Amino acid sequence: MRPPVLGPDPYGALMRTPAANLLTRAGLPKPPRLRRHEPGQDLLTGPALVIGLDGATWTGDLGTWLRAAGATVLDEHPGGTGEERLGAVLVDASGLRRVEELGQLRERLAPAFRRTRGRVLLLGADPARLTDPEARAVQQGLEGLLRSLAKEARGGTTVNLVRIAPGARTALRSAVEFLCSARSAFVHGQPVLVGAGEPAPARERPVAVVTGAARGIGAAIVDVLARTGHHVVCVDVPAAGDGLAAVANRVHGSTLHLDVTADTAPQVLATHLADRFDGADVVVHNAGITRDRSFVNLDEAAWNSVLDVNLRAPLRLTTGLLDHPGALAPAARFVYLSSINGLAGAKGQTNYATSKAGLVGLVQALAEPLAARGLAANAVAPGFIETPMTAAMPPVPRELGRRIASLQQGGLPVDVAEAVGWLAQPDAAGIDGQVLRVCGQNLLGA
Amino acid sequence: MRPPVLGPDPYGALMRTPAANLLTRAGLPKPPRLRRHEPGQDLLTGPALVIGLDGATWTGDLGTWLRAAGATVLDEHPGGTGEERLGAVLVDASGLRRVEELGQLRERLAPAFRRTRGRVLLLGADPARLTDPEARAVQQGLEGLLRSLAKEARGGTTVNLVRIAPGARTALRSAVEFLCSARSAFVHGQPVLVGAGEPAPARERPVAVVTGAARGIGAAIVDVLARTGHHVVCVDVPAAGDGLAAVANRVHGSTLHLDVTADTAPQVLATHLADRFDGADVVVHNAGITRDRSFVNLDEAAWNSVLDVNLRAPLRLTTGLLDHPGALAPAARFVYLSSINGLAGAKGQTNYATSKAGLVGLVQALAEPLAARGLAANAVAPGFIETPMTAAMPPVPRELGRRIASLQQGGLPVDVAEAVGWLAQPDAAGIDGQVLRVCGQNLLGA
Repeated sequence: MRPPVLGPDPYGALMRTPAANLLTRAGLPKPPRLRRHEPGQDLLTGPALVIGLDGATWTGDLGTWLRAAGATVLDEHPGGTGEERLGAVLVDASGLRRVEELGQLRERLAPAFRRTRGRVLLLGADPARLTDPEARAVQQGLEGLLRSLAKEARGGTTVNLVRIAPGARTALRSAVEFLCSARSAFVHGQPVLVGAGEPAPARERPVAVVTGAARGIGAAIVDVLARTGHHVVCVDVPAAGDGLAAVANRVHGSTLHLDVTADTAPQVLATHLADRFDGADVVVHNAGITRDRSFVNLDEAAWNSVLDVNLRAPLRLTTGLLDHPGALAPAARFVYLSSINGLAGAKGQTNYATSKAGLVGLVQALAEPLAARGLAANAVAPGFIETPMTAAMPPVPRELGRRIASLQQGGLPVDVAEAVGWLAQPDAAGIDGQVLRVCGQNLLGA
Repeated sequence: MRPPVLGPDPYGALMRTPAANLLTRAGLPKPPRLRRHEPGQDLLTGPALVIGLDGATWTGDLGTWLRAAGATVLDEHPGGTGEERLGAVLVDASGLRRVEELGQLRERLAPAFRRTRGRVLLLGADPARLTDPEARAVQQGLEGLLRSLAKEARGGTTVNLVRIAPGARTALRSAVEFLCSARSAFVHGQPVLVGAGEPAPARERPVAVVTGAARGIGAAIVDVLARTGHHVVCVDVPAAGDGLAAVANRVHGSTLHLDVTADTAPQVLATHLADRFDGADVVVHNAGITRDRSFVNLDEAAWNSVLDVNLRAPLRLTTGLLDHPGALAPAARFVYLSSINGLAGAKGQTNYATSKAGLVGLVQALAEPLAARGLAANAVAPGFIETPMTAAMPPVPRELGRRIASLQQGGLPVDVAEAVGWLAQPDAAGIDGQVLRVCGQNLLGA
């Protein structure tokens, strides 16, 4: 389940490197050890508090869902003077419409925030649907609060914001369960929009396809999708060799050696899925390459190969699968691996950033037409992740890359995989056209 | 024109501080001296090259506009082998629709990028209007290229992207003139959407109102708006005292002592503008305060005062002016001062970030209804700016705050003011609902 570079205790190994010691001695805080998914673990590390501000409509549901997931839900103590350590605090701010009402956030969330080690979840309305200027200002203001609170959180506590569009009950429950769980350990400081969409009846053995499955993030995605009951078709280039079979074998999946950039790739994949599996439920476009060099020194091959693999191939495969009868199951999901470097840009990565920003545009263009067919497309944008790719960086820039995040560390491939796994779940059907950063609130933007 | 803390040569003074010397000795590159607006200066420091990629429709206009502004426009040298230093390169990529076509960017822009010291301007289409997935992916991809190229640019060269919506001819010309000029010295790595909107007939002496005008960024905005021919009504709290009169006097403006949070403020301002000036052409909501403290330690007063001044007051004043007959000139513009800390969040600034993110929502909500009345609303989001506020920071964090930007320095109040001045110009009428960062591509995001 772990990339080979890290061994059984990645956190310990990463904390003991000379570069890590150097930065800690220089005064940077020691990164917290993040709680990650283990079979059978509790949802939370302590009781949950649910706070409903003016106009809140979800507090009852939140309590019900948390209890159903095994959590203890506390009553809010009058005056906020409770002292018990909390595993999570959830604040329904979706009914706030006036600037004065924002004061309730400070008054009621602050005492709970102080007591929380685990998860902080803000619930808001979708600002884009509000026409009243003050209402939209208030709901957009929550994003400033979100990002600031995330920067103030300590000890591995995460803060995220779920924006609720009409009809989002099922997707909201799914988002709450994911964002409260250890599966979202490296999702921090992020807004997510949830909308209408009901899960299709689950197939007995749903099928997922993952490109670039032989190693790194792709292999972790295979593991997570297998854990959630999928038969996984592991796709990689022939050059990946035995690595691909090893990944597929450990989850009883199957392999398909395929160069995603080949002219015939869409037809080959579509036929494979239609004929052998009665269509795919989940398609994860993870295959990607880098050819880093400054823009003025990039040659044609370095530009074209990155754009071909990272952007043109997912585009062609998507079209091919959509057009081929039977290649997709009735409620199929597409997930595309973007990157925060596609959102923020990166020196020496004009080609890579162009391709990864392009995937954002692709997902945004697909959202509506796919929703009309009962399908959905989303992107996941990893930040600094411990992979063979980042293991090859020089030690000090690598350590700085890890620390320049509110969680003060890099993520693991499994963190990205868990986000993909969530978006692949049947009850996440109402999440469409979104770009979810999995970056520990990496501070890189522009 | 300069804030009092900096004196006549702010760049020299800032480069000579102990903290600046320390970081330069530690290996950080020396920040470039930025070229800023001077009366009568040339638009560019060298000739301009205009590159039209497949489907380009603006190259002829770009050449005409640049020549009309006094620039020399070169023909593109076959093979891109010219050697002359360029003052600007403009690339019309608005016709690109296929991933393969992106290769033209590398092929034709890279040789010119190498030769450019000054301005790089990408022109694209509005991705949100493209329904074809590949077309939208390609145009969104330009944003990844933009942000990466900006991180690679050297010597004070800026890179920006203008997205062209239908009917944007006038606004496009205005954007090109601004983004090519020294007025945009600190605008770097940013996309701007330009749309339809024709300038109203200019009044002989247009009137601008600036809140928080007594010092810092507000005072610089007063100076720039006066330079562009406005009578400026300088608004600040009574406590600002003689400072306000000094600012108003140097530009032959007028003063209005007003607490923007007072119940009567909207009525007082609206009446003042209607009765004394026949309405305002430009309203700049600049007044803002900070009361920094961690969320759990914020008291009610610190929360409420920041939200009141920074968000509630602009909201109430905007409504008051829109509702009061005669308070606004026929094609009035609103500009709101947001902050990158509102976009990215900031530790110790939950109140401030909430208020500044709220202004983003306000502008987005106002855009359509205002456009229907021939008005427009935009926000400017400053990054690290050399003001009395930042002068009070401890030296090393302050110097790091300056350097964590692609331009490796803080901006000056005039940089923010120039952006406001541009959005206030009659021919910028087609720019509406936008948030323009003026931050030297500050790397802070989330």
